[in-house]
Amino acid sequence: MKLDGVPSRTIWLEPDGWSVGIIDQTLLPHKLVRLSLKTVEDAARAIKTMQVRGAPLIGVTAAYGVALAMRVDTSDASLARSVAFLGEQRPTAINLRWALEDIRSTLLPLAPAVRAAAAYARAAELANDDVETCRRIGVNGLKLIEEISKKKSGRPVNVLTHCNAGWLACVDWGTATSPIYHAHDAGIPVHVWVDETRPRNQGAALTAFELLQHGVPHSLIADNAGGHFMQTGEVDLVIVGTDRVTANGDVANKIGTYLKALAAHDMQVPFYVALPYSTIDWRTESGREIPIEERSEDEVLRVHGKLPDGEVSSVLIAAEGTHARNPAFDVTPSRLVTGFITERGLCAASREGLLSLYPEKTNAAA
Amino acid sequence: MKLDGVPSRTIWLEPDGWSVGIIDQTLLPHKLVRLSLKTVEDAARAIKTMQVRGAPLIGVTAAYGVALAMRVDTSDASLARSVAFLGEQRPTAINLRWALEDIRSTLLPLAPAVRAAAAYARAAELANDDVETCRRIGVNGLKLIEEISKKKSGRPVNVLTHCNAGWLACVDWGTATSPIYHAHDAGIPVHVWVDETRPRNQGAALTAFELLQHGVPHSLIADNAGGHFMQTGEVDLVIVGTDRVTANGDVANKIGTYLKALAAHDMQVPFYVALPYSTIDWRTESGREIPIEERSEDEVLRVHGKLPDGEVSSVLIAAEGTHARNPAFDVTPSRLVTGFITERGLCAASREGLLSLYPEKTNAAA
Repeated sequence: MKLDGVPSRTIWLEPDGWSVGIIDQTLLPHKLVRLSLKTVEDAARAIKTMQVRGAPLIGVTAAYGVALAMRVDTSDASLARSVAFLGEQRPTAINLRWALEDIRSTLLPLAPAVRAAAAYARAAELANDDVETCRRIGVNGLKLIEEISKKKSGRPVNVLTHCNAGWLACVDWGTATSPIYHAHDAGIPVHVWVDETRPRNQGAALTAFELLQHGVPHSLIADNAGGHFMQTGEVDLVIVGTDRVTANGDVANKIGTYLKALAAHDMQVPFYVALPYSTIDWRTESGREIPIEERSEDEVLRVHGKLPDGEVSSVLIAAEGTHARNPAFDVTPSRLVTGFITERGLCAASREGLLSLYPEKTNAAA
Repeated sequence: MKLDGVPSRTIWLEPDGWSVGIIDQTLLPHKLVRLSLKTVEDAARAIKTMQVRGAPLIGVTAAYGVALAMRVDTSDASLARSVAFLGEQRPTAINLRWALEDIRSTLLPLAPAVRAAAAYARAAELANDDVETCRRIGVNGLKLIEEISKKKSGRPVNVLTHCNAGWLACVDWGTATSPIYHAHDAGIPVHVWVDETRPRNQGAALTAFELLQHGVPHSLIADNAGGHFMQTGEVDLVIVGTDRVTANGDVANKIGTYLKALAAHDMQVPFYVALPYSTIDWRTESGREIPIEERSEDEVLRVHGKLPDGEVSSVLIAAEGTHARNPAFDVTPSRLVTGFITERGLCAASREGLLSLYPEKTNAAA
């Protein structure tokens, strides 16, 4: 998607042909700073300090991190060391380990002399695969927006989204945002309601920034406001991402998703979840079994932003001594979900719906 | 309720017998500063700059403002001038005009020599009436908490509230908070989930502060989190305030209330609205007719709080150039409301329910 008017990815090979470019996402939306990763240590630091974030992007960054290690030392020991080192930077990110295991098993059988080139090639493949998966989600979701647009005789289709399931979390396109970018690029008038997504404000800091940079009309709203705009008929469609979909179609996603799904159901607004195949957890029966991560109370008590003098800081919003609770996700039951948008098409939010798109998983989900 | 351990009101007569004490609520929760109003201009400034806020408190402050004017000049002209001057400080606050008309019509027939004393007496009456109304709401709502407590064998009753319908908006007790304070003071273990209530964060800045000062256990949460805690069975009861209840029982309240009502309904958590008689709008048929105020986008884009160095400032949470929408209220349909708690008792959220408590309004609501 566009940054400063130029089509961009979140990770790229620099013109020197070996160092790896990223956007320092810790500074968004207040500063757009690009960095070059030149060593495996640089890549590890970028992952650890969340200069790159979002499961797909973390995985690709780690793969490039191995490539950077291979430039210096192509031995088995170096390969093992770099994989272990990168893997421990974000211990809970499953995508990180998956990508590292992929590149390790690709390189290990190869002669050391060709490992560096092979590592760069595989990292590029992983990046391109993610782009293609997200692109297809967009093409499939575009149909929903097109259908609504036909009924609105030129007026914008209003899409509400929560958190950041955008291209900044992936390599390009994003998941929930991909149908929106496809519609916008196809000349279909769209307007996005962006939930700010407290406590970490990913909607305000990332999704609104993405849309602003790409030129997609949007309005930032408090998380409290989405239900009201559904009541007044100003939301045509909800599209959110997900962290995990269980075999029965329940959806774990950023805290607050359940409330928007309830309002959409109450007001008969279509509520879709966009996801790649890798997000489906075939082994977990229902959302009730998903453990919900509870994060630091500081995320609720302090808000980050830019001061009038341009410095970035955080402010305490409650009295000293106030305690907070901070569950990071909630589970939206499948009964509230109109359907899923995946790289293979649209389906109902149910076991039968998922298996209609992924018939090869029939045994896994049994 | 208690401030620094001492039972307090939001407005009081100072020991000198004539100046009027208030808390500067613009500095809460970061600084607790008390001010003395000594002139009608002081009272007007306190209302205009929101050092006092909340409809009942604004009304009482204005009444004391007239008393301060009468100290200096008890003429008809002075009375008319002070009433007009105070009334224009918050043009949309109905309570302000109601209180000023009350005190004007009380003083006008009296001899100038007794007007100052009569003004102080009437202002004190208005303050005491508000305290008594809120106290009765608490006594009536207490029954609900007591019933739940009996079933929980000593474990705390978890009450969720939204925004600040607390004693800081009134003279004492508050509306939604009054049953909570009554339960706590009666030794019933309660724990309050405090929605932070973006965009203005009245939950974080005022409700959490009130509860902390009075010693009521509570946890601040993002507005997104309430539905999750209902799903996990950690909310026993929701009590919110309201800005207007229509004749059919629909409830206008701070933006986001509708989402919590939906979750409570979905999870079968009792959802009550606490209100004084003055909040019922008998002339408006249903919530669909209530115009929803849209406020400045800056309230969404900027968050106020305390910097690490102790200074209070605001931070911008989105990129420069981002636009926001900011509806201040939403309407919760009566079908989602379990019942009302008023100074006269409990009733169903319907025309019939309201008329059962206020039979004298049968014609007004016809």
